[in-house]
Amino acid sequence: MGPHPAVAAIRLAVRRVLHDILNDHHASADRPASGEQSPHERPPSPLVLVACSGGADSMALASALAFEAPKLGIRAGGVTVDHGLQPGSDQRAEEVALRLRELGLDPVESTAVTVGREGGPEAAARDARYAALDAAAERHGAAAVLLGHTRDDQAETVLLGLARGSGTRSLSGMAAVSGADGRYRRPFLELDRQIARKACMVQSLPVWDDPHNTDPAYTRSRLRHEGLPALEKALGKGVVEALARTAQLSRDDADALDAWARRAEASVRDAAGLLECAKLYALPPAVRRRILRQAAIEAGAPAGSLFARHIEEVDRLITGWRGQGAINLPGKVVAQRQGGRLVIRQG
Amino acid sequence: MGPHPAVAAIRLAVRRVLHDILNDHHASADRPASGEQSPHERPPSPLVLVACSGGADSMALASALAFEAPKLGIRAGGVTVDHGLQPGSDQRAEEVALRLRELGLDPVESTAVTVGREGGPEAAARDARYAALDAAAERHGAAAVLLGHTRDDQAETVLLGLARGSGTRSLSGMAAVSGADGRYRRPFLELDRQIARKACMVQSLPVWDDPHNTDPAYTRSRLRHEGLPALEKALGKGVVEALARTAQLSRDDADALDAWARRAEASVRDAAGLLECAKLYALPPAVRRRILRQAAIEAGAPAGSLFARHIEEVDRLITGWRGQGAINLPGKVVAQRQGGRLVIRQG
Repeated sequence: MGPHPAVAAIRLAVRRVLHDILNDHHASADRPASGEQSPHERPPSPLVLVACSGGADSMALASALAFEAPKLGIRAGGVTVDHGLQPGSDQRAEEVALRLRELGLDPVESTAVTVGREGGPEAAARDARYAALDAAAERHGAAAVLLGHTRDDQAETVLLGLARGSGTRSLSGMAAVSGADGRYRRPFLELDRQIARKACMVQSLPVWDDPHNTDPAYTRSRLRHEGLPALEKALGKGVVEALARTAQLSRDDADALDAWARRAEASVRDAAGLLECAKLYALPPAVRRRILRQAAIEAGAPAGSLFARHIEEVDRLITGWRGQGAINLPGKVVAQRQGGRLVIRQG
Repeated sequence: MGPHPAVAAIRLAVRRVLHDILNDHHASADRPASGEQSPHERPPSPLVLVACSGGADSMALASALAFEAPKLGIRAGGVTVDHGLQPGSDQRAEEVALRLRELGLDPVESTAVTVGREGGPEAAARDARYAALDAAAERHGAAAVLLGHTRDDQAETVLLGLARGSGTRSLSGMAAVSGADGRYRRPFLELDRQIARKACMVQSLPVWDDPHNTDPAYTRSRLRHEGLPALEKALGKGVVEALARTAQLSRDDADALDAWARRAEASVRDAAGLLECAKLYALPPAVRRRILRQAAIEAGAPAGSLFARHIEEVDRLITGWRGQGAINLPGKVVAQRQGGRLVIRQG
């Protein structure tokens, strides 16, 4: 008798990603950067870490990693981050580390971070967490770090992007592979949260429900417990799947348009490197606005403060020229039209 | 003392669109198709119709059209469609026509339609309505038909598209200009429903609330009264604006990518006109999938039944070729790989 279907599903998802990691690992070992390694010498067995909060998603991920990694000659370890935001969080982190060791993971570490305030509580916690995971991956020489984000998390991320109203890229959710050298992998991105939860239950894995996940002070928590269920009630049960699919399609569309904008960018500059308004005008709006956005960022405007309405205003210097003055952008960047050229600079 | 701000807002929105219609009207009159018209002869005063259900949005639109059109030398008329879905709907339509005449519109007509069943009750009613509006526009030789869709309607349309999970085009909502020769115009697409309602109130215009708009049997009604408010509660008050902005950005992105796919399409066919797999493979996924979708439609697959997952499966014949067999698509269309070529045809 095989494993429970939920356990089979999480293991399959992890196995696929481990195969990808192995392929990438061997490919990089086949072209040694230095002369130290002989081409016939096998690289040492790679290490894959799981980032685990102790919640159902990442505990399920840890259990599947512990099961699949040895069969592929991969070493499996774990990291849990103590955000220090709740009393007793250090003890909680130690408990999670203990559970990871009980699953057979090695090395396992619990790492404490100090969460700042920049960008709001959720963004600050995320920044601190990824910095700690990056450091742990470097310290242990890990080939990859697995993250437990599910299809439900992806759907929530798309809705959060939708609320920003800043277009296709912001609808593209989380990538299956991200970070430096594709370090972060999300094996559960096409898996329902319910399956991860079920897999923990049937494997008798204790899980810890982070009170932040149900705290209505957090946007994502409100979305999860009120917004998304109401949307499902209005639109039908397929909403989570539709949102996850939207993420993938939006990511591909945004990638293609970014590539087009990068290619077109050189062709709209004059010999002095200034943007020519007439050539910008001839481009499709979607491509032109990407070039304008990139030019503003290169001039020093912080990407996170540059909204669609800023770019629209700059775009009107091209498409609706009536002699209007300079446009002020975030980061003290100024855009103005000068003799058929668009000048964007800090000043 | 000027008009109430809500009345000023609806009039400004209509005035802008009437200017656009006049520009297009004069441009088309400047290049006469036949030799009948002398180049110095002014075209007759154009007629603009308003499509009016008697609800707040379209009553506000009718009132603004009646006020602005004479100042620009435009004749203003109205059409109301009796869908025959509720007892007494014919009398209701006559009342709406009477109100339009009282506003000074001329010609005004009430036109009855028979709503079929195809595509569900909402789609069937919409199809019948647009067929009647098209016919009325032709009959009266109207230069344009104004529709009362507001920014709130646009936000709902984006969410309905999101629920389909079919990507950027389905997120692009309603166009400000659409239909044959840009016949349909939506002056209120950036205006809140609340402003139209307020404009009716301060002008003492009686409005009729269609019971369908609050009937939870209709998806749009559930979205309006439950889904969207819950989303606003979770994400904040800017959701409607963010959704409307998403529509505009998505439309521009989809237009640019469609144009790219049309251009690339010729370059991936061999001398016999067959799609070459190697050349398709080299394209960005977003462009390749658009070419595949278009090829399936040209082979006879009905666009409305062709989902993203169908195209993904065909795409795997290019990107994940492992000797898999023919893919069945809607409309009895079959896609298969034959000797480095992708063959998509009915059969």
